Amino acid sequence: MAGNSFGQLFRITTFGESHGEAIGVIVDGCPPNIEIDQEFIQSELDKRKPGQSRITTQRKESDTAKILSGVFEGKSTGTPLTLLIPNEDQRSKDYDHNKDIFRPSHADYTYQAKYGIRDHRGGGRSSARETAARVAAGAVAKLFLKTKGIEIFAHVSSAGTIDAPNLASDDLAALLEIRESNIIRCADPATANEMIEMIDGVRKQGDTVGGKISCIIRNCPAGLGEPVFDKLHADLGKAMLSINAVHGFEYGSGFAGSEMKGSEHNDIFKRAEDSAHVTTLTNFSGGIQGGISNGMDIMFRVAFKPIATIMHSQQTIDKDGNATEIKGKGRHDPCVVPRAVPIVEAMAALVIADHVLRQEAMVLHS
Amino acid sequence: MAGNSFGQLFRITTFGESHGEAIGVIVDGCPPNIEIDQEFIQSELDKRKPGQSRITTQRKESDTAKILSGVFEGKSTGTPLTLLIPNEDQRSKDYDHNKDIFRPSHADYTYQAKYGIRDHRGGGRSSARETAARVAAGAVAKLFLKTKGIEIFAHVSSAGTIDAPNLASDDLAALLEIRESNIIRCADPATANEMIEMIDGVRKQGDTVGGKISCIIRNCPAGLGEPVFDKLHADLGKAMLSINAVHGFEYGSGFAGSEMKGSEHNDIFKRAEDSAHVTTLTNFSGGIQGGISNGMDIMFRVAFKPIATIMHSQQTIDKDGNATEIKGKGRHDPCVVPRAVPIVEAMAALVIADHVLRQEAMVLHS
Amino acid sequence: MAGNSFGQLFRITTFGESHGEAIGVIVDGCPPNIEIDQEFIQSELDKRKPGQSRITTQRKESDTAKILSGVFEGKSTGTPLTLLIPNEDQRSKDYDHNKDIFRPSHADYTYQAKYGIRDHRGGGRSSARETAARVAAGAVAKLFLKTKGIEIFAHVSSAGTIDAPNLASDDLAALLEIRESNIIRCADPATANEMIEMIDGVRKQGDTVGGKISCIIRNCPAGLGEPVFDKLHADLGKAMLSINAVHGFEYGSGFAGSEMKGSEHNDIFKRAEDSAHVTTLTNFSGGIQGGISNGMDIMFRVAFKPIATIMHSQQTIDKDGNATEIKGKGRHDPCVVPRAVPIVEAMAALVIADHVLRQEAMVLHS
Amino acid sequence: MAGNSFGQLFRITTFGESHGEAIGVIVDGCPPNIEIDQEFIQSELDKRKPGQSRITTQRKESDTAKILSGVFEGKSTGTPLTLLIPNEDQRSKDYDHNKDIFRPSHADYTYQAKYGIRDHRGGGRSSARETAARVAAGAVAKLFLKTKGIEIFAHVSSAGTIDAPNLASDDLAALLEIRESNIIRCADPATANEMIEMIDGVRKQGDTVGGKISCIIRNCPAGLGEPVFDKLHADLGKAMLSINAVHGFEYGSGFAGSEMKGSEHNDIFKRAEDSAHVTTLTNFSGGIQGGISNGMDIMFRVAFKPIATIMHSQQTIDKDGNATEIKGKGRHDPCVVPRAVPIVEAMAALVIADHVLRQEAMVLHS
Repeated sequence: MAGNSFGQLFRITTFGESHGEAIGVIVDGCPPNIEIDQEFIQSELDKRKPGQSRITTQRKESDTAKILSGVFEGKSTGTPLTLLIPNEDQRSKDYDHNKDIFRPSHADYTYQAKYGIRDHRGGGRSSARETAARVAAGAVAKLFLKTKGIEIFAHVSSAGTIDAPNLASDDLAALLEIRESNIIRCADPATANEMIEMIDGVRKQGDTVGGKISCIIRNCPAGLGEPVFDKLHADLGKAMLSINAVHGFEYGSGFAGSEMKGSEHNDIFKRAEDSAHVTTLTNFSGGIQGGISNGMDIMFRVAFKPIATIMHSQQTIDKDGNATEIKGKGRHDPCVVPRAVPIVEAMAALVIADHVLRQEAMVLHS
Repeated sequence: MAGNSFGQLFRITTFGESHGEAIGVIVDGCPPNIEIDQEFIQSELDKRKPGQSRITTQRKESDTAKILSGVFEGKSTGTPLTLLIPNEDQRSKDYDHNKDIFRPSHADYTYQAKYGIRDHRGGGRSSARETAARVAAGAVAKLFLKTKGIEIFAHVSSAGTIDAPNLASDDLAALLEIRESNIIRCADPATANEMIEMIDGVRKQGDTVGGKISCIIRNCPAGLGEPVFDKLHADLGKAMLSINAVHGFEYGSGFAGSEMKGSEHNDIFKRAEDSAHVTTLTNFSGGIQGGISNGMDIMFRVAFKPIATIMHSQQTIDKDGNATEIKGKGRHDPCVVPRAVPIVEAMAALVIADHVLRQEAMVLHS
Repeated sequence: MAGNSFGQLFRITTFGESHGEAIGVIVDGCPPNIEIDQEFIQSELDKRKPGQSRITTQRKESDTAKILSGVFEGKSTGTPLTLLIPNEDQRSKDYDHNKDIFRPSHADYTYQAKYGIRDHRGGGRSSARETAARVAAGAVAKLFLKTKGIEIFAHVSSAGTIDAPNLASDDLAALLEIRESNIIRCADPATANEMIEMIDGVRKQGDTVGGKISCIIRNCPAGLGEPVFDKLHADLGKAMLSINAVHGFEYGSGFAGSEMKGSEHNDIFKRAEDSAHVTTLTNFSGGIQGGISNGMDIMFRVAFKPIATIMHSQQTIDKDGNATEIKGKGRHDPCVVPRAVPIVEAMAALVIADHVLRQEAMVLHS
Repeated sequence: MAGNSFGQLFRITTFGESHGEAIGVIVDGCPPNIEIDQEFIQSELDKRKPGQSRITTQRKESDTAKILSGVFEGKSTGTPLTLLIPNEDQRSKDYDHNKDIFRPSHADYTYQAKYGIRDHRGGGRSSARETAARVAAGAVAKLFLKTKGIEIFAHVSSAGTIDAPNLASDDLAALLEIRESNIIRCADPATANEMIEMIDGVRKQGDTVGGKISCIIRNCPAGLGEPVFDKLHADLGKAMLSINAVHGFEYGSGFAGSEMKGSEHNDIFKRAEDSAHVTTLTNFSGGIQGGISNGMDIMFRVAFKPIATIMHSQQTIDKDGNATEIKGKGRHDPCVVPRAVPIVEAMAALVIADHVLRQEAMVLHS
């Protein structure tokens, strides 16, 4: 109810502040007998961790996840699977200056208004550091989905005003290789270079810039999603909008689809030539119809605002309402999207894992 | 879990199919002693009901809500408040032709895939008729929010490629009057005329077109929203994405914000001159920071795809996978947005009512 | 959250007041393609309805359930299944005398304290009339459980100080026949006669008396129940304690077991001679170990206090705290247990149906 | 959904196995600005920890709770409060003998049946060690309830067939002092001695014995509890039944009340002489009417079966169904109740804290 849990049957609860002892997550509802590959979990965390490249924050955290419970002889047992990530490089002193000051477009003011108390160090609970716990949990979800053959792939499709073209390949493994070969995590190499150059410039100006991430979910069976409030895309949308700095979500034809006519937009059904498999000629539906997956690729896009911490001096007020100035200290990212790619994938994996279980509870009896 | 409930403390559960006995909703968690103004509930339903104008479906439903429980001598009692809307004008025969055929971009195929059974008449549970129950429940939420001084206003800001300019006035009551004076529900009269003309043309072609709705929530106290997964905008996003035909959601700066720099995007805090009230110079945050309301106007926008039922002949398949053709019968809307305005407001009211209660559970003790 | 829903995956929400328009229930999460036998639902309601015999209240209600949604061509569709039971014999005037008076050991005072408003007519929402909705929903759960071969049987094992002996037969169908052949619903005919005679005496004195109901659940697979908070017996216990007038719950060895030694109490495992089936020599565990069913009969017992409405004059206070007197009017039961038998079975069915779905969501992947 | 969480608004999630790295708990929903007294939390854990006396298991665990998150400068912040208790004295080897054997009346068989995998060491997740996490969380709930003046007191009212008389005093602080002065935790000194002597005998025989715990909750405001499924006593009952080894729960008049007449059982309302405060002459209702607290002492009793691990040789089967023998090794308690007293109090505190928040969400608007 306090909003630190996500999912119904495959359910996670995260905890921890940026500069506390540790952050972590309980995964409750992971089916038993799933191989829990710790190296894979760590490799996912490594994609989100700070200090990866010159276009990410220089804060150093190894972000090593330790399994506290729920695994026996390398497999999930069906009991709560807890992952703990100790905090290491906590320069809390860096934040003394904002103890009583509300940083513009941060959560300082709203936390104070909500709770009447806040841990100001590094943004406390509002820090995007919390998302490391999501990535760890999402890795567990991915291990579960792997047993179903379901794949998830995201990449940076826009940085600022630079947009990647449609992807040249349909091979997710190949795209993943390209994506991981550049520090912006765009699956189009030429665009990646352009984006990196732009972000370098923004970083040197002490400024930040927003971007967009596109995601594909492949091999979902038809039938996932609940038809009214828990539509599959509504749960994906909530998942994405719960990520720090996200300001928009669209799936399938998205905002552009609202300018189209029905005769253009309708996805014509076709039976695959050699099988009973149903496909559609176009996929403006983004793999979801009436809130339920139809077996086509699920496609969505997420918009991130620019990170609020900039190295410029800005006007603001302190907790007594007095006008004052603040200038970013600490170590921050010039562009949020490269490190957000594994977070988008993790949240998508959590949504799909949850709906796989929900559907399987229902479908056995039909 | 089956996704027919929404909200945590102010919680609704809807039921009913398009051509069944009735649709309805249980509102569980409405605080006691709220005046339940039945005329107001009905006036909200009237804005969504079919047959309002030439640009809406000609299906005739009075959509009269009857209160079955939870109200005593005109006031809520704290027990479940049930609203029943009988179905009247059910021409189920109109749907015999699609009993075994999957209409393109409808939920026929996915329901069949999910459940192995479906009520095909008028789309059954997947029909947007379900949203009448939401509007009725949302009206109850509005009555509750009225006691807090919180206002909600939505209008059609785009139809197809026609966009309304920024609103000329900041007076929500005045804007409401303008909006209700035209059949497209746009608060800019000139744009409204242009939109209506365009939709008339689309209707004559037997086609449909999408659109966008913008919404403002005013006078929310600072502090609403939970900071991690149940961010206020994440819950608003899920609420909107759960409405039939919605393909996108953005708040504050939205998708455009992802192209901005931090130095442009940050909202500078200012103390209001004559009070302790905190404001921001700009509102790219859309009234929400770190997932929590900051007291400024909450602003978001919702994109609707064109309705799938068109009067053209389209290729499709039947339940055995054989190729066939289908042509829209029944009575449908050329453009979804005019009737969706009260639905957007209703879902917004439900989210805010829920978070008001959640915050008040927490805040008493702080 | 307001406590009008029960269950997680097989979830019901009830509504309605004793003297309002109607009571009813939404069953959300019933798997699709279950035969919904309306006659069976009605026959269950008939066992709970008032006016059955001289030892039940003479209020006349046909308690006819109407299906509003979720059924198509006689089968569940997976969408919310709504059952409506109109109120008929509402002599609200009978209750004018207690509008401002708090009846002893009723919920009048606590509702007023909680909500600051109450529908006093017939006890409003606190009336056991609400349990008719549970019986209707429980009948749907039973229809689902029938497809799994799971049986539920309850009977009156005590009325006041009269206890039935251990049941002579192990054949639930035969016991059901005996139970339904007497108006107290005890499966031991001699005890039934004794109980009826006693209750007749109590009724003539204008008094009431409590009793106990024992329940057996047979053919549950091993593995139902969640091991920590949602232990199968904890959910059964909550279900039973949520029934009006229940003051105690025990399973297996129950309270008596707390006086035993481990060496007496342990249930020795044995493999059934001709199969891999595991049994225990005794069943002090009541079919549940570590909160999880072990495949043996699940056995529990429920204690009901005497109904508070008596025909004697009693001291009490009015809403202003002034001393006054009250004497029961209206039409009430001298002993709650005969009509509570179908309620106990219904709540048991709902718990088991829920845990069947919960286990099947989990087990597919193991 | 997997049942490792408890509570709605004041919500805990526990994790950990008996012989894993650690056990712990996330408290989500503790209001902000509550003083988090670590010494108090530890003193509660000390009452549950093993090795306290000769009548408890000799396993040695310091059970030191470490706060990982949610506290800033000694106060709760409203974010998840995580408590970690590392496991120390894990003699896992002690359990090698039961790796493939199902101990009678333990959860070995049912876990295997449910999950197809189990951590057999010390019972894994089924070990009562999990309750240490509950006691830590319950201590946080008690700190919150202290700000409301609500007190909770439990003691051992029966061990085997030895029952304590009604308590001589009504002063909970004085009773607590007596209770903590003896190792059985009975608030009647003479009975305590008798119980200890009996348990000493049972221990020497290598056997175990059950018992009962009685609990009083004082100073609850009237109005706590939801009237239908989440009745206050139903939630208390579920909480108690979720504790390892509990086989029964009763409140107020309980099982004995089912033998009474209404004219004896009804609690007559009275206005306290010098105030508007409402009291009842008797308290057969146990402080709860219609599921809602009435302001009187809440009183309930919990029955615990004897612990299953005995030092005798017992018949059983292994995982292949072959007959075999097992004899208790490891270090176990001869009687569960002395260490269960803080668990009962903790679970009671969690239920009440949850309902305080639920009521305050509702009541503000009435």
